[in-house]
Amino acid sequence: MPTETQADKKPRRARAKTPTAAAVVPAAPAVPLPAMPQQGQARAVIDAVLPQVDAGRFAVKRVVGEALAVTAHVFTDGHDKVRARLCWRKEGADAAQGWQETEMQPEGNDVWSASCAPDAQGRWRYTVCAWVDHFQSWRAELLRRVDLADILIAARVGAELVRQASERAQGEDRTRLASLADNLRNRAEQAGRATIAEIDSVSLEVASIKAAALSDDLALLADRWPDRSHAVWWSAEGLPLVVDRERAAFSSWYEMFPRSAALEEGRHGTFKDVQARLPYVAEMGFDVLYLPPIHPIGRARRKGRNNTLVAQDGDVGSPWAIGADEGGHKDVLPALGTPQDFRDLVRAANALGIELALDIAFQCAPDHPYVKAHPDWFRKRPDGSVQYAENPPKKYQDIYPFDFETEDWRAMWLELKSVFDHWIGEGVRIFRVDNPHTKAFAFWEWVITAIKAEHPDVLFLAEAFTRPKVMHRLAKLGFSQSYTYFTWRNNRHELMEYFEELAHGPGADYYRPNAWPNTPDILNEHLHDGPRSIFMSRLVLAATLSASYGIYGPPYELLQGEPREPGSEEYRDSEKYQVRHWGELTLEREDSIAGFIATVNRIRKEHVALQSNSSLRFFDTSNPYLIAYAKRDAQGRNAVLTVVNIDATFTQSGWVHLDAAWLGAEGGGFVAEDLLTGQSFDWQDGGNFVMLVPSQMPAHVIKIRGNA
Amino acid sequence: MPTETQADKKPRRARAKTPTAAAVVPAAPAVPLPAMPQQGQARAVIDAVLPQVDAGRFAVKRVVGEALAVTAHVFTDGHDKVRARLCWRKEGADAAQGWQETEMQPEGNDVWSASCAPDAQGRWRYTVCAWVDHFQSWRAELLRRVDLADILIAARVGAELVRQASERAQGEDRTRLASLADNLRNRAEQAGRATIAEIDSVSLEVASIKAAALSDDLALLADRWPDRSHAVWWSAEGLPLVVDRERAAFSSWYEMFPRSAALEEGRHGTFKDVQARLPYVAEMGFDVLYLPPIHPIGRARRKGRNNTLVAQDGDVGSPWAIGADEGGHKDVLPALGTPQDFRDLVRAANALGIELALDIAFQCAPDHPYVKAHPDWFRKRPDGSVQYAENPPKKYQDIYPFDFETEDWRAMWLELKSVFDHWIGEGVRIFRVDNPHTKAFAFWEWVITAIKAEHPDVLFLAEAFTRPKVMHRLAKLGFSQSYTYFTWRNNRHELMEYFEELAHGPGADYYRPNAWPNTPDILNEHLHDGPRSIFMSRLVLAATLSASYGIYGPPYELLQGEPREPGSEEYRDSEKYQVRHWGELTLEREDSIAGFIATVNRIRKEHVALQSNSSLRFFDTSNPYLIAYAKRDAQGRNAVLTVVNIDATFTQSGWVHLDAAWLGAEGGGFVAEDLLTGQSFDWQDGGNFVMLVPSQMPAHVIKIRGNA
Repeated sequence: MPTETQADKKPRRARAKTPTAAAVVPAAPAVPLPAMPQQGQARAVIDAVLPQVDAGRFAVKRVVGEALAVTAHVFTDGHDKVRARLCWRKEGADAAQGWQETEMQPEGNDVWSASCAPDAQGRWRYTVCAWVDHFQSWRAELLRRVDLADILIAARVGAELVRQASERAQGEDRTRLASLADNLRNRAEQAGRATIAEIDSVSLEVASIKAAALSDDLALLADRWPDRSHAVWWSAEGLPLVVDRERAAFSSWYEMFPRSAALEEGRHGTFKDVQARLPYVAEMGFDVLYLPPIHPIGRARRKGRNNTLVAQDGDVGSPWAIGADEGGHKDVLPALGTPQDFRDLVRAANALGIELALDIAFQCAPDHPYVKAHPDWFRKRPDGSVQYAENPPKKYQDIYPFDFETEDWRAMWLELKSVFDHWIGEGVRIFRVDNPHTKAFAFWEWVITAIKAEHPDVLFLAEAFTRPKVMHRLAKLGFSQSYTYFTWRNNRHELMEYFEELAHGPGADYYRPNAWPNTPDILNEHLHDGPRSIFMSRLVLAATLSASYGIYGPPYELLQGEPREPGSEEYRDSEKYQVRHWGELTLEREDSIAGFIATVNRIRKEHVALQSNSSLRFFDTSNPYLIAYAKRDAQGRNAVLTVVNIDATFTQSGWVHLDAAWLGAEGGGFVAEDLLTGQSFDWQDGGNFVMLVPSQMPAHVIKIRGNA
Repeated sequence: MPTETQADKKPRRARAKTPTAAAVVPAAPAVPLPAMPQQGQARAVIDAVLPQVDAGRFAVKRVVGEALAVTAHVFTDGHDKVRARLCWRKEGADAAQGWQETEMQPEGNDVWSASCAPDAQGRWRYTVCAWVDHFQSWRAELLRRVDLADILIAARVGAELVRQASERAQGEDRTRLASLADNLRNRAEQAGRATIAEIDSVSLEVASIKAAALSDDLALLADRWPDRSHAVWWSAEGLPLVVDRERAAFSSWYEMFPRSAALEEGRHGTFKDVQARLPYVAEMGFDVLYLPPIHPIGRARRKGRNNTLVAQDGDVGSPWAIGADEGGHKDVLPALGTPQDFRDLVRAANALGIELALDIAFQCAPDHPYVKAHPDWFRKRPDGSVQYAENPPKKYQDIYPFDFETEDWRAMWLELKSVFDHWIGEGVRIFRVDNPHTKAFAFWEWVITAIKAEHPDVLFLAEAFTRPKVMHRLAKLGFSQSYTYFTWRNNRHELMEYFEELAHGPGADYYRPNAWPNTPDILNEHLHDGPRSIFMSRLVLAATLSASYGIYGPPYELLQGEPREPGSEEYRDSEKYQVRHWGELTLEREDSIAGFIATVNRIRKEHVALQSNSSLRFFDTSNPYLIAYAKRDAQGRNAVLTVVNIDATFTQSGWVHLDAAWLGAEGGGFVAEDLLTGQSFDWQDGGNFVMLVPSQMPAHVIKIRGNA
């Protein structure tokens, strides 16, 4: 059936000599050709580098020494082998030192991975670099070659690749690679000259050449000097990473009103009184002491007790109504003491391992000096008066918000930044920012970036209890920690869903939760006149679900749960509007859970598993009032399991279904040591019976292994 | 308890007159301040614009008139109202015309959405623009205001906003807004001058002013002329979108070897023979006729029948071994006819509504003219010979791959592009690209972009049966359609998981599947000597699960299932290596399912629901051999439900659990009209009993409503 060759003949002659058909290319296109890439010969592909926040628009966050595990899709066309490296470097001055690199490993399905652990605070960059590796490709093919002549050709190809590697190499490697290349080429050429009669001895020699070419030593050596002339980079500038100090991820906060710190009933507390209370705070195990605003409080339109509209004589007003004749955001309320008293307090706290956190509330009382000095920083009403804060029909006439649309915004931003700078100069390194979501987002990104550029150790907690996407945005913009919805997550399903999202959801790389069972603004209904057990269980939940947590004391440890009116989230006789007195505070007070808190905070300090959230895993329980979960550290040295009875009143019991292997108890059975009570249980993989009596102890915090 | 004022006195005097504390700002920072943004007053935030492919690195794909539904997170600080618009424009010359815009609507939880439907082929851009809308903010606050004085102040604020809108407005709007502003201001000012004694009549007037200020007319008018001086854009250049003609999304492919098209046994088929077969292809309802390479076939190392290493005299070789003395990629195999014959074939096909698709296989037989003309486009072995394709220990010595790392890559890319250009000049607009994953990825991105810039109607099908991430990359780079793993997805779970992913997974916006029950390279085991029913059921699955599908005929419709050897995916006596003869092909042939195929293709044409994949939804069945799913069109005018018995041999029956409302049968009960058999069933919401007898009809394709 020689159909083709017959039919071929005529046309072949007709078309002869115009083989590449250059003549029939259509006329120059009407549309200009898109530019060819710079590196047309670069064949490796990098895709889907993770983690990244909005394609690198925002930074991923880690703390010093914490692993940044990076994955990427890496591949090339055809069968060639690729190699990939994770690259990272510090931003700024250190950039000149270039990238640190580590080889990525294939995980299968074209996914490659590697980890780095940046060792200093500040802004970093990371990226992925990949290339088609001709030595590795050649080696992988040689492994599968069987034909003698084929192996000898391949050996000569390999000898050339090794020679090229020697030219890239330095030091001893250079000489060794050159000599290995010569050896391989000479042996292959000599064996290639053998005759068919010598086939037996040549076969042995070829096998030996192949073995030499495939030796691990050679591969190790050649891999050190790859040809990266056609390497591709995920991005030249890299993805941003902010590395904070450890406290950004693991912190225990105690909030208190300094003006209520006086021991004697009737006296306005001072910084010195707070200083006297530091040992108590330290004994409870808190490492951040957060004070509401300490500045002069406005007199115009001052609010009275329980937020009444008109202050009575002697009413101290709300610390968030900042500014009066005697000063504004950079000044201290004279009743609290002097700037030197404040510095002394900072120093005394630090000496006890406690950092002072200040509240930054960018808003002004009507008598704040800014109002006179910078009238254009505030909106005006048609009558020329300054526009107070309002959310109609509610009016907050004691508060003037800044107008972030002012034409003078640059000067205002600089001045607001100088407020942070002032307190940084006074020794403060942590700021709790009041309602950041009511100020322009662009300002926060700039000011946090600016401050951290000079002071990478400064941390910012975003006090935004608002819609999820707004809270996430603030975290992306640079806030080191964020308040959460924990206060309103009470049943098992809510808690599991929410903390699952916080630990493993899209915010895991930038949103660091700080869980509070109460704040001066939030006395959640479940605490209203609740029994001691609810204060204990909510504290255990916050302290073990979230690596950072805090309480507003002394009301919390003193089990205060009386609302301003039924159903209100406001405390009755709230310290926000008046001075309170709490008497002598000790760990031993009968009406206090301070001792219990000290135990929980000690457990947190002693168990590294509780100091991050990324490992959080929930376990099934047979009773919806029992919630069970565990955390373990990245190195697998420590694991802590928590079981909480979230019913404040009744004993609850049921089965908790554990994954003993995940917890690090490989054998199946293990001794569960309750760190709260000192009791021990023999537990096992799968179901374990738990009974928790609220009036005794509403939780187990169980050490599976590791740490003291 | 006048503690504060007492304590205040002394310090107040001490600190007097340094209120803004400018003096205590620390010295100029060591680190330069980060730049402030251009638009510090812009307070709106846009986040998470979807869809986007790799943050805009690659284009989203749609067809002309198809909706592009865009969502974004849009919000601002505080309580102010934001507005957002979806903006889109054509790339290139038309860009000067600026963006088309449509108002986005809030979906709740700060998610906003809008749709556009670009009306021409080519590359487009889309983005989102948002701003804080002071008119809307003012209006929302006014709604909640109750205090008389407050309302009058607000009315004056609003009058000023309306006046400003009038200055932005044009035409009649300008006059109307100005007059409404005057009216509002005058009335508010006048009412403000009333005395307390007049409070009753003023109350009525204030209510009337409030109603006027809140009128829908005013809102509509003011909304047309917003103040966008502080608007933010997701990105100035926008995200890329490729709009193709409809066939990119909805196409029915028929593949055939022209050389087997001769009616007479023993003769090599020609383009004229293919032309004679066009009515048959058209009757079956296919709209793309795809021909394997039509170029001169290499003689050096030509493969024999059944892929034997040595060709016998008269063996015609593989069409993929492209190039010989008589020409290369721009020439036609003389045995098939002349270039004019080819042009005639293109024209005749078009007249029947069929497009010709050519196979572009960028590789060369050893005697391809390129090998002599451009030796540097190929890799060399140490002995100077050209490196043939290999995957050790396998060798493909009849094929020379291009070396995409050649130093002369720019010239090679241009020449390869000119191959497409040549066939575009000959009237071809669809290319099936052979093994694109063995050529450099960067080349594909450039060449497809370049060709579509001039010819936006050209479509590319990627024939890459390889790893998922590689196939996805090719689709991202610009291939209009992609082959799938359908051939190897046979049981219900596999089919559901895979098509769920294709329809709703991350590739949904760029990866357009083309499902083939067979190809010349893939005779899947389940077709081996399978009964007629398996050919029918696999065809129904492909044609209803995927808006684009194809078969390799005539073997498929003639129920050919004999493998080269047991377990092989190769056809015995494959047309890849020899001429075959299939006799006269008609829809009526007893040994053919051509008539059935015609019915299925007619159903596809008549039911718009089957012409896209985005609505695909699977329904539960009680029998794992029954798979059930439906599609509906975007407008809700048409819905088609398919149930297939995937057991080739045995009757299967069970319950199919439908969601009647989703299918558009609101009442619950509906008449299910089987488009394959003409039978009708009374069906209902929930469970419906189905029994499918393979020997009769292995599937239901049921019209729920709409279309002819």
